[in-house]
Amino acid sequence: MSSSGTVRSYDAVVVGAGIVGLACAWRAAQRGLSVLCVDGATPGGGASGAAAGMLAPVTEADFGEEALLGLNLEAAAAWPAFRDELEEAGGIDIGHRASGALEVAADRDDLEELRRRLAFRRSLDLDAEWLTGRECRRLEPGLSPRISAGIEAPGDGHVNPRAVVAALRRAFERSGGELVTGVRATVLVRDDRVQGVDIEGRDRVAAPALVAAAGAQTRALPGLDADALPPVRPVKGQILRLRVRPGASLPAARVIRSPRCYVVSRDDGEVVVGATVEERGYDTSVTGGATHDLLRAALELVPDMRELTLVETSAGLRPGTPDNAPVIGTSEVESVVLATGHYRNGILLAPITADSVVELVATGRAPDAIAAFSPRRFDRSERVAS
Amino acid sequence: MSSSGTVRSYDAVVVGAGIVGLACAWRAAQRGLSVLCVDGATPGGGASGAAAGMLAPVTEADFGEEALLGLNLEAAAAWPAFRDELEEAGGIDIGHRASGALEVAADRDDLEELRRRLAFRRSLDLDAEWLTGRECRRLEPGLSPRISAGIEAPGDGHVNPRAVVAALRRAFERSGGELVTGVRATVLVRDDRVQGVDIEGRDRVAAPALVAAAGAQTRALPGLDADALPPVRPVKGQILRLRVRPGASLPAARVIRSPRCYVVSRDDGEVVVGATVEERGYDTSVTGGATHDLLRAALELVPDMRELTLVETSAGLRPGTPDNAPVIGTSEVESVVLATGHYRNGILLAPITADSVVELVATGRAPDAIAAFSPRRFDRSERVAS
Repeated sequence: MSSSGTVRSYDAVVVGAGIVGLACAWRAAQRGLSVLCVDGATPGGGASGAAAGMLAPVTEADFGEEALLGLNLEAAAAWPAFRDELEEAGGIDIGHRASGALEVAADRDDLEELRRRLAFRRSLDLDAEWLTGRECRRLEPGLSPRISAGIEAPGDGHVNPRAVVAALRRAFERSGGELVTGVRATVLVRDDRVQGVDIEGRDRVAAPALVAAAGAQTRALPGLDADALPPVRPVKGQILRLRVRPGASLPAARVIRSPRCYVVSRDDGEVVVGATVEERGYDTSVTGGATHDLLRAALELVPDMRELTLVETSAGLRPGTPDNAPVIGTSEVESVVLATGHYRNGILLAPITADSVVELVATGRAPDAIAAFSPRRFDRSERVAS
Repeated sequence: MSSSGTVRSYDAVVVGAGIVGLACAWRAAQRGLSVLCVDGATPGGGASGAAAGMLAPVTEADFGEEALLGLNLEAAAAWPAFRDELEEAGGIDIGHRASGALEVAADRDDLEELRRRLAFRRSLDLDAEWLTGRECRRLEPGLSPRISAGIEAPGDGHVNPRAVVAALRRAFERSGGELVTGVRATVLVRDDRVQGVDIEGRDRVAAPALVAAAGAQTRALPGLDADALPPVRPVKGQILRLRVRPGASLPAARVIRSPRCYVVSRDDGEVVVGATVEERGYDTSVTGGATHDLLRAALELVPDMRELTLVETSAGLRPGTPDNAPVIGTSEVESVVLATGHYRNGILLAPITADSVVELVATGRAPDAIAAFSPRRFDRSERVAS
């Protein structure tokens, strides 16, 4: 037997110390619950640490995802207050910038795509104004002369996800929460009800509620029946981190996007170029092809990025779902609440997810915000097929 | 005073534990000299550790460098015996492969350049046969359909420079030599004659002979008068290391070259893509632009390299000289022998350099092989101007 046999009790266990898990754990601890957060790796060691940190409900909006757009807009509106509270509680600047974003066209195909996106935005009653190439360069002088048009999304912005993870961790621990990382936890279920977790080589933990926030690893959590969980799958994203030289200016003030990449410029000099979207199972290797394509796509937007220092190449696994929307709500196992499937919007959705999950754990009622994102929206055939 | 005051004596001190310095140190120790080798950083931490390790007298041959070609060919001929002796003495497989090399053309400009290179080779009485694109792909099936022609250099090959450094280090120490790294050494000169070195925080070392083999750092060695040294300057090279997935085949059997890159495939699965040639002083940053250009150039040759894992990006500083040839011989300070300026051929030239340097240190006579590469071939104005 792997555990020492002692039993400790908590009001809730959160499995996963990424941005979603830590936000849930912090909010639960703030509400007065005794909370254990456990992760097999390091805090933010999965998708959260790889992510660029865009808060981009508008530029991430896509055809056919109108319900998700509503959640994303609500989540974005909640971020400034969340930031203030988190920076106060965690004592760390999380690099939040309401920078705005600029979607641009670098060739004829892009131009056609941009026109479609303009029409799509207007159909959703989102403000959108067509900018000429010259107008784009007036906003962002670093843009290539090849850029022929653009659409601004003034409300989009970004945070530094690694700083968010660090702040959440401190805020959670300062609220009395306990974090255990680098150990394997097995969920204990009896009669379709969660009993707690068994932490390898340590205590057995009893808890009447468990939040499964392990991102793309959620269906692989030991002790849970994968076939009874919604079809969350890993979607690989490769991403580059570059840095401006001391004294040099950032490539752009706004987030810059084309159909092939986005460029996020942080005030501390970090410039993030992302991201591939690949169906490769649990593979997290960085490839020559993806690194080439991302660099080419970025240099096509801002040629002066050639001179930036390339400091990191990495890959993360987004938790994807069939409808690209998150899975937030009680699973088939009573008292196991799922908080996963956030796909490309994990950073944006973490605060609203945490508020909803904690409300659900504390009261047993799912708030309206997440009604459309219940795990029960997928039928079993979809689960097994995935 | 930084040294402890004690004086130890050696027959010779070698400053620099790159491939040239370690080869000189090993050869001197083999000859029965007591030798101290000292380096401010780690063994192979400079250009040797960044290098691809090509032994390519023919494909590196360039217009106007005929004297260098002679030395390079002689050096290449000496490598197999050196390899046998080093692997025996060091107990490490250094990955030597007489793979041959294939210079190819991917576009019209390349084709013209390749024709010039064919004529150049023939003018030097080097064998060279024109291959069609189809013939190239018969030799190397991974080559892109865009490759329209090629010239083979069957005698070119490569070693793994990091393995060579490791083997040299062990061979040197097994021969009784002493290696001290990570400390600053100041050359002690009195009356234009070397006295030894002062090692920061350690003993003062007395030695009647000193070999300066610090590559691009040679003119910056504390205690030497830079103005009295030949015009060796840093020439930055950025280089990528990729890896084939387990079970997958190598991109090519031979070294593949275009005017924009070379690709070296090792039996252990490492694939090296190099290298930029940049005049940037002592800057060793890895840039987005160079990484992009090298990947693009490699994918243009072997499209399947997209799937390779990108494991390392790095930059080294080659010791460049006005005529691209090395500087091997006694400096203006008596008993200071220079072994630097190897530019793009440091790995290839290390064994012949070591043999020549040790001959010079032991007998006072410079062997014929290095007569054309004396430090005295540059006049003082060139030294100061550089």
